[in-house]
Amino acid sequence: MKIYHFLHEGRARFGVLEEQGVVRAMRGSPFDGDMTLDEERWPLAGLQLLAPTVARPRIFGVGFNYRSHILETGRPLPDIPPLFMKPDTSLLAPGGAIVYPRGSTVVHYEAELVAVIGRRARHVRQEDALAHVLGYTCGNDVSERTIQRQEMAMGLMTLGKAFDTFAPIGPCIETAVDPAALRLRARLNGKVVQEGNTADLLFGVDALVAYLSRAVTLLPGDLIMTGTPGGVGPLRPGDAVEIEIDGIGTLANTVVEEDA
Amino acid sequence: MKIYHFLHEGRARFGVLEEQGVVRAMRGSPFDGDMTLDEERWPLAGLQLLAPTVARPRIFGVGFNYRSHILETGRPLPDIPPLFMKPDTSLLAPGGAIVYPRGSTVVHYEAELVAVIGRRARHVRQEDALAHVLGYTCGNDVSERTIQRQEMAMGLMTLGKAFDTFAPIGPCIETAVDPAALRLRARLNGKVVQEGNTADLLFGVDALVAYLSRAVTLLPGDLIMTGTPGGVGPLRPGDAVEIEIDGIGTLANTVVEEDA
Repeated sequence: MKIYHFLHEGRARFGVLEEQGVVRAMRGSPFDGDMTLDEERWPLAGLQLLAPTVARPRIFGVGFNYRSHILETGRPLPDIPPLFMKPDTSLLAPGGAIVYPRGSTVVHYEAELVAVIGRRARHVRQEDALAHVLGYTCGNDVSERTIQRQEMAMGLMTLGKAFDTFAPIGPCIETAVDPAALRLRARLNGKVVQEGNTADLLFGVDALVAYLSRAVTLLPGDLIMTGTPGGVGPLRPGDAVEIEIDGIGTLANTVVEEDA
Repeated sequence: MKIYHFLHEGRARFGVLEEQGVVRAMRGSPFDGDMTLDEERWPLAGLQLLAPTVARPRIFGVGFNYRSHILETGRPLPDIPPLFMKPDTSLLAPGGAIVYPRGSTVVHYEAELVAVIGRRARHVRQEDALAHVLGYTCGNDVSERTIQRQEMAMGLMTLGKAFDTFAPIGPCIETAVDPAALRLRARLNGKVVQEGNTADLLFGVDALVAYLSRAVTLLPGDLIMTGTPGGVGPLRPGDAVEIEIDGIGTLANTVVEEDA
């Protein structure tokens, strides 16, 4: 099932994809456990999509999780998931414009599988973890590398990942894919620049949910950006960037200069 | 003015301190810009206090900000504020119990001044920054050092600071203090174990708000934990820990073992 989140007559709604590009309305929110369907239907192509989660989710990211990306950074394999957080103000809808910060010179795309938490999770075992995940979507963990490197040299990492619009997420939540066997890629101005398969993840979604839930009560709508494969590279104002995951869909965004 | 947040008949309310330990109700929330007062009054001593902010704030922390703490860790002075985030599930009310994680062996208190954002801030200049701060409260940036050290060795830091209950905040927001000249201390089982003065901050509240707002839209209720002075040390189950800031008040919490 593919769940979309969109604006309809000024109100944020959820809906599920029926056949032939038609979205059927949900009465409430899947994050309140109410997936009852209404009779209203709209063409998908006409909807103004929102990031498919709650209004103000917490966003957890994994710094190094694909063997290919770890190799390209020259780092040893981590023993525990290297976690960071992005503030909800970094969230960006499908189709939205990534704002290239004034004064920045190195801003990278990062194609990622994103797990969307559906049910509260605390001290969850790895074998039970996926039952707390509603589904999966695409994410772009946009990163300002100059600040990120300065921060990492001090042993922490926040602002380089935290800029407004640095977390495009979408286009929909697919509830029926196996998160351990998904091909994903980034396309920059139409050309494939990053490719990977979640089979290459050091810490799979089940391990990440279990690990996080040892410390943090995970809440409905929380996003776990699971890390990026090798091939990250620069964005520039004017670029079009797409993150595509087989079986889920394509998250497309543009890059614009920040207003002076 | 001292603003309290508390539960009254099952509802979260804000109120201001009148003389003689009496709290007078606010109609709405200072974070919605409505500080109109109601006629209801209650004795402060009888109130069940909540962390003095919105229900689900973002929490930004500064890793190294007091010269004395930086010296005790043997690090160089940072060029930019070393930032991290704590999830809102780490929030703990005044009087609440810090849960000592199962399997942990090194958990530290950290006495901190906390700035509470009152008005949206984006690209704010340092000289205008304090106008976006509603006021100041006490915080304890509880830290699981074993995980924190493993994370910092990888160049990021999240889970060690993120456990549920690891962000006690309170008891109230004082709107009329100078954040650049406040004496603060931690008391462990009645004994002073940490002392400092915010005059020793490398990055003051104005600098932190300006710096963060270059990247992140700060929102009403956001908390900035400004860092801790020298003297951090271990907590154990059974301990009573207090963070006191002159002119604001005392945040008192206990430490309990996690349920098996």
